Amino acid sequence: MRKSKHGKGFVGGEKDFIQRYLAPLAKGFDGAHGLMDDAATLDVGTGFDVVATVDAVAEGVHFFADDSAADIAWKALAVNVSDLVAKGADPIAYLMSLSFPTPPNDAWMADFCRGLAMAQTVFGIKLAGGDTDRRDGPLAITITALGRVETGKLVARSTGRAGDCLFLTGTLGDAGVGLALRGNPNLQADWQLSDETADFLRHRYLRPKPRNRLVSVLLEYATAAMDISDGLAKDAISLADASGLGLHITCARLPVSGATQQVVAANGVTLTDVLTAGGDYEVLAAVPPDQREAFVSAAEMSGVVVTEIGHLMEQSDWVFEDLSGQPLELSDLGYDHFAQDL
Amino acid sequence: MRKSKHGKGFVGGEKDFIQRYLAPLAKGFDGAHGLMDDAATLDVGTGFDVVATVDAVAEGVHFFADDSAADIAWKALAVNVSDLVAKGADPIAYLMSLSFPTPPNDAWMADFCRGLAMAQTVFGIKLAGGDTDRRDGPLAITITALGRVETGKLVARSTGRAGDCLFLTGTLGDAGVGLALRGNPNLQADWQLSDETADFLRHRYLRPKPRNRLVSVLLEYATAAMDISDGLAKDAISLADASGLGLHITCARLPVSGATQQVVAANGVTLTDVLTAGGDYEVLAAVPPDQREAFVSAAEMSGVVVTEIGHLMEQSDWVFEDLSGQPLELSDLGYDHFAQDL
Repeated sequence: MRKSKHGKGFVGGEKDFIQRYLAPLAKGFDGAHGLMDDAATLDVGTGFDVVATVDAVAEGVHFFADDSAADIAWKALAVNVSDLVAKGADPIAYLMSLSFPTPPNDAWMADFCRGLAMAQTVFGIKLAGGDTDRRDGPLAITITALGRVETGKLVARSTGRAGDCLFLTGTLGDAGVGLALRGNPNLQADWQLSDETADFLRHRYLRPKPRNRLVSVLLEYATAAMDISDGLAKDAISLADASGLGLHITCARLPVSGATQQVVAANGVTLTDVLTAGGDYEVLAAVPPDQREAFVSAAEMSGVVVTEIGHLMEQSDWVFEDLSGQPLELSDLGYDHFAQDL
Repeated sequence: MRKSKHGKGFVGGEKDFIQRYLAPLAKGFDGAHGLMDDAATLDVGTGFDVVATVDAVAEGVHFFADDSAADIAWKALAVNVSDLVAKGADPIAYLMSLSFPTPPNDAWMADFCRGLAMAQTVFGIKLAGGDTDRRDGPLAITITALGRVETGKLVARSTGRAGDCLFLTGTLGDAGVGLALRGNPNLQADWQLSDETADFLRHRYLRPKPRNRLVSVLLEYATAAMDISDGLAKDAISLADASGLGLHITCARLPVSGATQQVVAANGVTLTDVLTAGGDYEVLAAVPPDQREAFVSAAEMSGVVVTEIGHLMEQSDWVFEDLSGQPLELSDLGYDHFAQDL
């Protein structure tokens, strides 16, 4: 960790900043070299591939400026660990590049590092290195997460097979509803949500939880998998597309929490919103039909609820069957939007 | 590569953007999965550590808005590869996080990718993955470079020994002078530099060149090493400090190019400027005195010129001996500045 170019404002200078806030997050990971060198080392052992993924989160795009620093930290790490575990990789370490428009104060940094420390413990990963810059623009946190998987065993997007059942972990749409509540607190009253319910939804938005415990289950049963960071519709189509297949999803089967059901009932969000809202970071997995029971049992044993929501099919159609058994129009799913504008 | 949130403006959408510009940079590296998945894989082989480093470059901080896209791309990759090779690691692959305030046009992206392609070939590294965001603030490119080194063989900062000779590759100060010329073209006339000389200096600023060919030599002879991205004075002190030692550098021995000597002679820059200007990305290496001849020969054989500039010492002093044999004051070296403000 070095080359902090954050100018005046960090009391005690770069070295103190790193040693005070960041070095404790690297403790116990030898390859971090105490954050005193220019590079981290990682011994993944014989017979393993390194797995690497990068995602940035930025104020105003991925979080609100007044989200707590601990929540921001948690999310920055979670979105990356989620990518690793959805690929069947065990997280090991991460590098973090911080870009501050103005130097953070002590309280903010302390809270940020508390959030990281908690996330590290829950996700099983440690800080290995990084850099810190001061520049204009939003606060941005770019994390590269490193993990390992047995050589050649990465669970790809592109290896689904026709007939595979599609499973989803957890529940769908909560993060999108939580985001709406976070943006407009009045919606809680409009939707007649209890404080507890509203808190649950906001928490699902603020604190996505990578499905670490599913790693070994994915490795054993999934032909293809990915996390659904961009919404189920887009990501399921991505998986089918990468596999050269079509898909059929039965919306009546979608796992929707009681909280989100309540918002749907209050006409707060539609089925299409649930299908297209991002931020859930659940895992979508393709599993051969003759393995479905074994997969469900193994997932259950690992403490993760999975729900069968559809299947991959030979025909290159994307069918989202609505509650009355009719196919939703793709334009309703916002598909034109993300195909052409993103 | 995924989750491009760059909104409208990229003709053809995210997938086309990635496939058109970025996928060619990943060609030949299987672990990139064609930039179609959420994570890259890397098989470093038995007996190797992964080496990972991250550095961001941003418009207005590390480059000028009107630098050519190819130069920006080259520098973004070079500063990271430089960290790897100065640690004795062979580069393998990199992940790139792009943040655009406004979508780049075709010509800019094509030039950017040309610069990356050229740098990749020269540095021996390939694109493995990344993400692209659109957000306010300066154009920023955050690269995580991954390489490998035999297990436990990383050339650290902290392992220098008292009495070790300090060697520097290439020449010192050119990038700093090039930056000054880049910022104020009138200086060329003030300093009476030929176009060729001015071009050389600007090129040294715009196109730092990682010392890949020194990797095996560092592994064989260096007790400690690092690249001098932040200027020799600061970085040499960092190395000595991390090793729990002091240092003595004899400024009369510093390798200064004819071009920079001409600028010094024209009173354009001082010795202290040369000692403190960053951006040279040369390698500083500590070598035991009884290995100095062998090190110089091996470096020469590899095509890299190295110059002995001083030594590490037991006393925790930092002595920069000026041309008249007197120690330079640390305040002249800007040391107070970077100790307290950075």
